Formats: sequence, structure tokens, C-alpha cells
Amino acid sequence: MAASASRPLVYVADSPASGPTHEISRARIRAAARRHPGLFERVRFAYGLKRADLAKAEIVLGVAFDATTLRQDAPRLKWIQSINAGVEKLAGKLDRGIALANASGLHGPKGGEFGLTAMLLLNHGIQRFVGSQKRRAWEPLFTTPIEGKTAVIVGAGSLGQSVARQAKRHGMRTIGVNTSGAPVAGFDRMLRARDLARAMPLADFLVVTLPITKATENLIDRAAIARLPAHCGVVNLGRDRVMDYDAMVERLRAGTLAGAVLDVFNPEPLPADSPLWDVPNLIVSPHSGVDDGAVYVDRGLDIFAENLRRHLSGRKLRNLVDLDRGY
Amino acid sequence: MAASASRPLVYVADSPASGPTHEISRARIRAAARRHPGLFERVRFAYGLKRADLAKAEIVLGVAFDATTLRQDAPRLKWIQSINAGVEKLAGKLDRGIALANASGLHGPKGGEFGLTAMLLLNHGIQRFVGSQKRRAWEPLFTTPIEGKTAVIVGAGSLGQSVARQAKRHGMRTIGVNTSGAPVAGFDRMLRARDLARAMPLADFLVVTLPITKATENLIDRAAIARLPAHCGVVNLGRDRVMDYDAMVERLRAGTLAGAVLDVFNPEPLPADSPLWDVPNLIVSPHSGVDDGAVYVDRGLDIFAENLRRHLSGRKLRNLVDLDRGY
Repeated sequence: MAASASRPLVYVADSPASGPTHEISRARIRAAARRHPGLFERVRFAYGLKRADLAKAEIVLGVAFDATTLRQDAPRLKWIQSINAGVEKLAGKLDRGIALANASGLHGPKGGEFGLTAMLLLNHGIQRFVGSQKRRAWEPLFTTPIEGKTAVIVGAGSLGQSVARQAKRHGMRTIGVNTSGAPVAGFDRMLRARDLARAMPLADFLVVTLPITKATENLIDRAAIARLPAHCGVVNLGRDRVMDYDAMVERLRAGTLAGAVLDVFNPEPLPADSPLWDVPNLIVSPHSGVDDGAVYVDRGLDIFAENLRRHLSGRKLRNLVDLDRGY
Repeated sequence: MAASASRPLVYVADSPASGPTHEISRARIRAAARRHPGLFERVRFAYGLKRADLAKAEIVLGVAFDATTLRQDAPRLKWIQSINAGVEKLAGKLDRGIALANASGLHGPKGGEFGLTAMLLLNHGIQRFVGSQKRRAWEPLFTTPIEGKTAVIVGAGSLGQSVARQAKRHGMRTIGVNTSGAPVAGFDRMLRARDLARAMPLADFLVVTLPITKATENLIDRAAIARLPAHCGVVNLGRDRVMDYDAMVERLRAGTLAGAVLDVFNPEPLPADSPLWDVPNLIVSPHSGVDDGAVYVDRGLDIFAENLRRHLSGRKLRNLVDLDRGY
């Protein structure tokens, strides 16, 4: 084994605010080391968020800093491995020499199932029953199975594909929307983002899985939302700023949209005085839709391990973020 | 065609209270007649709930009367075709000469999907998010996929089998409970109702699809409910009186049960002063879980048509209710 000094330093940037699901703990890193024998011994890990360690770090694991801090305090930094999918706080702001990799793909199984759950509950009027229940009102609603209905899924990356797979399981029609409109597995049909206006009226359900970038900001704007059918149910698992929540809330309050399950907000936590808490037929999911409570960090550390192997042998990393596109 | 007087009279017992989903309307009967050419012309239909018609009726379609009324006012009655699955108001109370057929099987596709929807939403903590939302509290909960978890489905008839099929679609383990414990399609394992105590601790989800009979009344009693794990989610799509709601509500209030989606109550509509409206982690579904809003009566009339053909040729009816067992 190489001498201590020659082994690259991995700075564990675990946010002090991370709860048990997201904590990059020593125990989890030890467990990952056992899953990848002979690999983690080739680096050193620095815990405890000490600034002196950051100065020596070649690799940062986790995203607990802004780009300015990293530029000033991490002169030897070569690679940041996030275990989140969304890295909007760093993308576009890092120096060119630094590789940024995300954990896209991590949210697939749980996120796809959550997307289906949201569509099914909207399909069966659970959001309306919740509202009736608050008013102690018995208001039956006799719905129909979801088979044959159309999910328009905006964003056809790992999470969007996972939602599409779940929708196909239930005989739904899946229309994907991405930049190119090129075919993607799990989608019956693809449309380009510039043709969004054509996709909206087809949506029995609209599921948004987009990251926030320059190109996606407010993509689903007031005009797009106006084109959704009245029976449409909306699900947002991506980022809040890709969608005009004000326009959607107006339709929900007017009763011209069936319902919504929103998992992302700005800011988070959603402040207690936000008007979003009591919009009719809107279910607030506290950014819990896609992270798997059991395996989130473990899977993220497996992605880190794969990339560590590549980094140490000078190969190109997986899940590299395009610093301009932002994902 | 036979002369009018010799054609049996079908008394359409459409309750004046039935809404658009459940109305046995002239238009729906005409549509069913077109689906079954040459059949409906062999009988006459009496609409409008006139007592004079009931006196001449050989067949009653729908359940709008109690057994006493039928005994007094329908002396020529031979067969009652319900388009509901649950016929507890008549079973056990009719004269032996009268055949009672239900519409079991009608609720399969919609009811199975609703059962899955309820399990998925409980699995992903939607019932908790709804409670947090009322308090404007941001309380994330990072759940795991439903694959590999166990659904204990009490009642393995048409509805229970449909729930089991949906659960298998998502890789769940399915344990069915019925009288005999004999194998049933879609269930990985069957247990007898007398062994219910053994089934309860295995339930990540408990789904009740039982009719109410002498044998099922309070089957899931306080002792059974005490044996459910704390993380269990409960779904009742059968009848309320098969389950001790008081015992379940105590566990929900104590926070020792994950949640419940209840679709059946006593009485219905649930009165505004019922304590059930604001039990934490309990979602009140207003008896809308299993009836398909688009095809409910149409499918029921197809069952009626099949039985009408049998009745006119003296063959045994389908879906006959055992007047003693009650289903």
C-alpha cells in the first residue's frame, strides 16, 4: 500500500443538516469499503469538515460548499462527487479544471414508484377525499382504472424513465418530452421541449422530472399550464422553478384542474406562511418523493466507488455534469 | 315474439337515491339490450317503482326493498338480481323459494387498482404528509419501494384476487385469508380465517375485502388488530363491521400504526359528528373505492343478461348468494 502522504485525500462533505437518510457517515463508508474490496484503501478520508483538510483535498464527496468556498479553500481539488441528482448550486460556477459528477440514477426505483403512486392517487381522487374530509363532507367520486390513460413525462432522464416504466406496467400511454425528441426506452412517443404546447393537451397526468437549468427554468410556464385538460393531475418531482406554480395554483383554486402532488418547493422547507399549504386538491410532499430511505447513501457511495476506480486509473468519470447545461 | 301478458315482468328497483354512477336508467337498459340482441325482448321492464308493478313482477333488478316489503308486495317474485356485491340487507331474510344473485366480480379491475393505490400511498407516507400539511409542518419521510413487502388480504374472492394481482405486479408477497385456506390464484400463501392471529404480524399491509356475514362480523377484532406491526398500513374495501374500528383508531391515535385508508363505514354517509373524520393518518374514502364510474351499471346489466338467459331456460343462475352464508 502507498504511503499515507501519497494517497489522495477524500474530503467527506457531509452537511451537518443531513438527517439519517442522507448522512455520509463513517459507518456507511466502511460498509461501502467492504462492498468494494481493495479500493477505498487507496485513498484517505477526512471527516469532520475541517478547513485544513479541505486545503489538501483532491476529491470532495458530497456537496456542502458553494463554488466560492471551494475556489478559495480547496486549491488541490480535482473532482466533486455529489450523491444528489440536482447539483444546481455548483453547476456553471466551478472552475473548468474541476470535474463534477452527480448521482443521477440513484432515484430510479423509489422515484418511479412515487411518481406512479402520485398518478394513481390523483386518478382515484384521493386529493379530493382529503379536502372533503377536512370539511367532514361525504362526497363520493366514482373513478375509472388508469389503464389507457396518458402520462406526459417532462424530462426523460433516469427518473423520467423510471416513472415511464411504472406507468407502462399499468397499461398507460407514455409521452416523453426532452430537448431532442429522440426515442427513449419506456416512452411510446417523444416530443421536443419546443413542442411542449402540443404535449400539454394530451396529458391525463403531467409528471415533471426536470433538473433546473437555464433551459428548463419556467419551461412549464403559464401558457403551457393553460393548455392542460381540466381532468389532468400534475406531479412535480424535479425542481419547483421549472414550473409556474402561481399559474397552476390559480387553476386549482378555480377548480379547473383535477389535482397536484408537488414534491419540490422554493425555498425548502416550505415556510409556514406559504399559501401553498392550503390550496384545494394540492398535496404537499416534503421533498421526500425520490430518495430511498434505506439505500440512498449506500447507492450513492457505490457510484462514488465506480468513479473512484476510474479517477485513480485516469479514466473518464460516469455521471459527469456538463457545467454549461447544468445536468 | 310472445304476447305481452306472457312475458315475465322485470321490476327495475332503481333507488331514487342512486346517483349517475349507479342509476339503472332506461338508457342503460336499452344499451344493454343492444349488447345482447334478442334477449331483453323476451321480458317486459317496469320502471318508476310502482307498487302495482311489484305485485306482478317475476324478477326484481336492483335492491331497493327490504325482505318484508318483498314478501308482502311481490307474491310472484322468483329472482332478485342485485348489481352490488354486498347484499347483506336481503341475505338470510328472503323466503327460500326466491333466488338472490349478486354482482360479485363487477368490482375487480377498479377495486384491485384502488387497493394497490391505497397500499402505495400508505407505503410512501402520503397519509402523514396530509397531516403535516394541515399543521403547515415540513416533515420529510424517506420511504422505500413496495417490492418484497407483504400484503395480507382478508377475503380471497373476486375483489381480493384483484388486489392480489395488482400487488404481484409490484413484486409484493401476497397472503390470502379465507374460510378454507385452500390455494387461490394470485396468492403466494393462504391461511384459514381461524388462523388470522398468525397472519396479522406478517402484514406490512392489511387489506380487507370481506362481505359482512355472521361469520365475518368483527372477525378482525381488537385482539387481531393488536397483533399488527407498528409500520402496517390498513385498507378496508369490504364492510366496516368486519373490523373493530375503535381498536384501530386507538392505535392510530397512539401513533402505533402507520396509517389507514377506509372506504366503508356504518352508517353511510359518515355523519358530520363522527370522530373518524379527524383521526391522524386515517384517510376517509367515501365508499368510492371499488365502483367503476364509467362501467358500473353496464357491467351489472351484463351479469343480469347472462342470468336472464339462464332463468328463461331454467338453468342455474350465476353469482347465486347462499342465503345462510350471506355471500
